[in-house]
Amino acid sequence: MENALDPIEEITLMGPGPSCVDSSVLAALSKHTIGHLDPKFIGIMDAIKEQMKSLFHTDNQLTIPVSGTGSAGMETCFVNLVEKGDPVLILINGVFGMRMQDVATRLGAKVDTLNFEWGTPVVTEQVKQKLAEKSYIIVAVVHAETSTGVKNPVAEIGELLKGTDTLFLVDAVTSFGGMEIRLDDWGVDAIYSGTQKCLSCPPGLAPISFSDRAVAKVKARKTKVPNWYLDLTMIINYWEGTTRAYHHTAPINMLYGLYQALFLILEEGEDAVYRRHMENHRALVAGLDKLGISMLVDESCRLPMLNSVYIPDGADDAAVRSALLKEHKIEIGAGLGPLAGKIWRIGLMGHTARPENVEKLILALKAVL
Amino acid sequence: MENALDPIEEITLMGPGPSCVDSSVLAALSKHTIGHLDPKFIGIMDAIKEQMKSLFHTDNQLTIPVSGTGSAGMETCFVNLVEKGDPVLILINGVFGMRMQDVATRLGAKVDTLNFEWGTPVVTEQVKQKLAEKSYIIVAVVHAETSTGVKNPVAEIGELLKGTDTLFLVDAVTSFGGMEIRLDDWGVDAIYSGTQKCLSCPPGLAPISFSDRAVAKVKARKTKVPNWYLDLTMIINYWEGTTRAYHHTAPINMLYGLYQALFLILEEGEDAVYRRHMENHRALVAGLDKLGISMLVDESCRLPMLNSVYIPDGADDAAVRSALLKEHKIEIGAGLGPLAGKIWRIGLMGHTARPENVEKLILALKAVL
Repeated sequence: MENALDPIEEITLMGPGPSCVDSSVLAALSKHTIGHLDPKFIGIMDAIKEQMKSLFHTDNQLTIPVSGTGSAGMETCFVNLVEKGDPVLILINGVFGMRMQDVATRLGAKVDTLNFEWGTPVVTEQVKQKLAEKSYIIVAVVHAETSTGVKNPVAEIGELLKGTDTLFLVDAVTSFGGMEIRLDDWGVDAIYSGTQKCLSCPPGLAPISFSDRAVAKVKARKTKVPNWYLDLTMIINYWEGTTRAYHHTAPINMLYGLYQALFLILEEGEDAVYRRHMENHRALVAGLDKLGISMLVDESCRLPMLNSVYIPDGADDAAVRSALLKEHKIEIGAGLGPLAGKIWRIGLMGHTARPENVEKLILALKAVL
Repeated sequence: MENALDPIEEITLMGPGPSCVDSSVLAALSKHTIGHLDPKFIGIMDAIKEQMKSLFHTDNQLTIPVSGTGSAGMETCFVNLVEKGDPVLILINGVFGMRMQDVATRLGAKVDTLNFEWGTPVVTEQVKQKLAEKSYIIVAVVHAETSTGVKNPVAEIGELLKGTDTLFLVDAVTSFGGMEIRLDDWGVDAIYSGTQKCLSCPPGLAPISFSDRAVAKVKARKTKVPNWYLDLTMIINYWEGTTRAYHHTAPINMLYGLYQALFLILEEGEDAVYRRHMENHRALVAGLDKLGISMLVDESCRLPMLNSVYIPDGADDAAVRSALLKEHKIEIGAGLGPLAGKIWRIGLMGHTARPENVEKLILALKAVL
């Protein structure tokens, strides 16, 4: 019988995720499956929680990977924290802010939004004004907007909420592992990420963390969480304590991969990893500049790991991406929504953020364009 | 730095899942990650759909793996099919029937149940009477009740529903890949499974299939699916058609594993695989009988892949399981709910169902008891 997996060639993944995966992470995925209640596995779970707490800079006890991709992390945060009729403010400047609005609305939240032009950041002053007019149960924002490459001022927004009862919810899908995140210092109450961006693990898990007051909100719900699979009040009994009550079977081998991916980041050193992202970002921008390719986002709020670049005049969007993939084994990303056909999204996420990859892409673009 | 993954010893997984994983499936997990929109990956997705349709014996176009574990499959079926106030009948004779009740209730369904003693099957005649009294939007049952080892009469219940507007929803978490399932012949409208049972792939994905009329019910909803992550009306646009619209990033490497696991089953031949399960089940029962260990479930409705056995008088439940794990590298499962402390659950799922494993367990039990 023909096997559809043979062969799978190595592609340099320079799109908006998944990113390149280190061979030790791939090797971890293929270690022997053991039971989800095996003491050895419980030890690995505990180690992952400690790794995540370290990288999130938090003491939050509820710091675990959810058994789904990054979007399941978003779903987990909203479905646990929101009850019908709760007023929620969502700050939107791209696809993933819009996704938050969709998720929260489906759950019956009363959603207000503040919208900012795609490619520009959330303006803290406008958030401050909005908060002066009305109080919210939750304010939510995307840290690193993957659809545009913009960094939003999470720490500043967190400052506005300190001393209030409002919970601060942050999407860190693209930022986690690629730039500094300090949950406790910034006053973040709930955060989610994905494994396939700067953690450089294949997609399939969503690291989340909830502050004690966010957990208290979940435990004080008037109604059960309307999602059995993602109900944190039950999931914590598997991830915490001494009895480890079975809820659903954990994605064992994926968790091996996440452990190893976090291990690599902590071994290299958090600051070194962030510096590597920034240095390769700068090299990429310089290289693109020489090719006459300019950036969508102003330097002041550019993400290092997600670079939105204008498609040069005369270049065929899909044809160029296809040629890069077929002839040069490099994947870059297309634009989304209003930016489709106008930009490419070049990822320098995690293991991808290496000088040799920047160089390879610049040479390939030169050849293709 | 110490690495929590080193070493992970091989355990013979004879519990209620996860099951033993073939080395070719582990190898598949560690193949190079490629993009979720890469044409090569789209080809693998299409191949998985065909494998699943073959093994489910269905022409259902919507036959895909959901990006979560088996319980996410349960959640997907209910959250897409149920609208608030819908009358739903759930047939319960174990933990997983109860879980269905919990999931459906959280979603606002009006749930009626028929309860049967744990360790005995659903009685079709009682279902028939119930259906004569009241009509339901959905009737739901677990095919192979993992908590007890009982096989429920899915084909017979399906017969009762033919020609009605009632949708038939089946939990095939433990049966899929280990015994015959014929969706189209049996009139099943929605089914879900998990990868870590008889498919012998690590946990992390939930194969599902929806009939055309189930899809029509989802598309005709008055309200949006209250779960963005599992909304099939959006997910099908990624799994079907020519444009393949991004919804969430698929769990790429887990899907390699699922492909390879299904490949092995289809290569060995479906009938041969089911026969292997039955033969090893019989050998296990005979071996246990010699040790004076008897079965919970009557032979007429025993599952081959999940064997519930009475804990022998004088044996310490936890101590025996711990000794098997530590001294013999064999995992078996504990009882759940009212059967906790009374039974062990011995899995012969997928790749685990081999004569050498049966023999190893019998010898180990002899040594430990």
